[in-house]
Amino acid sequence: MKLVLVALFAAGGGIAGLSNAASGQVAAAAAPIFGIKMPAGYRDWRLISVAHEEGKLNDFRAILGNDTAIKAYREGAHPFPDGTIIARLAWSYDPLEESEKAFGHPQSFVAGSPKNGVQFMVKDSVKYASTGGWGFAHFNDGKPADETVHNTCFACHATVKDRDFVFNRYAP
Amino acid sequence: MKLVLVALFAAGGGIAGLSNAASGQVAAAAAPIFGIKMPAGYRDWRLISVAHEEGKLNDFRAILGNDTAIKAYREGAHPFPDGTIIARLAWSYDPLEESEKAFGHPQSFVAGSPKNGVQFMVKDSVKYASTGGWGFAHFNDGKPADETVHNTCFACHATVKDRDFVFNRYAP
Repeated sequence: MKLVLVALFAAGGGIAGLSNAASGQVAAAAAPIFGIKMPAGYRDWRLISVAHEEGKLNDFRAILGNDTAIKAYREGAHPFPDGTIIARLAWSYDPLEESEKAFGHPQSFVAGSPKNGVQFMVKDSVKYASTGGWGFAHFNDGKPADETVHNTCFACHATVKDRDFVFNRYAP
Repeated sequence: MKLVLVALFAAGGGIAGLSNAASGQVAAAAAPIFGIKMPAGYRDWRLISVAHEEGKLNDFRAILGNDTAIKAYREGAHPFPDGTIIARLAWSYDPLEESEKAFGHPQSFVAGSPKNGVQFMVKDSVKYASTGGWGFAHFNDGKPADETVHNTCFACHATVKDRDFVFNRYAP
């Protein structure tokens, strides 16, 4: 709570200044290979969809998009226009205590603490021409992950080349 | 797609006019007991958290909040101030086809079609004094659910009275 209040004062008290402080993740450094910095205020972006990864990842995810991304999704634009940024947030996958008590077994799962970092896809068809027009960035606790991590992004996203390399569809 | 474009023209082309049309759920009627209508533009609200219900419900959820709700969550306000509105959206809980193919078993789950309706909690400590200051509303395909459904809301939320009757915490 103290950290949030300090940030509020620094930002002049407006709620617009809350976003990064409230997300608890502020990064100044750019991620390797694609040179992407954490976009300011991404925690305030609108929702694209939600996801859950099982197994080793075992997390809850929210996919948020900047205004360009949301507009493109809603209009069915393909490929996504330059300027599109998609954010993938993730948290631990926790049973909700109250519902487990009420049902006698896990029934409801909710997002817990931040987990597995925050990722971004940035569309720039010229700058990132060799990777389908997308740059990729992964941050752990606000710090960019290393080059090895960033070398894995495009290969995986290439499996959905026909969806412009984007896994998540818009949840209406 | 046709519906979205028509709405765009009607709203003068701005992205702000997209929200309800893009959500596919527009309700004019008020829900019983609490008399709550679907708030305009709720699909554009910021994210509070995500959730998953197992068993019969078997859905993916996103909890969104209006500006009053987001501010209250980030500042740790308790109880939530009058004017707070919390929205609960839900979709089918679908395996992501591409990851199932790649892993040989379901690994990633994503939101599919809208499912189990859209719900709202509206804070008005005077109007809804007898139900902890909260009014509840449930809409299926844009239409209010019946009175029986609305009679179940408060009893269940009463299990988290110490959190001002709100199940979901803010996901940072």
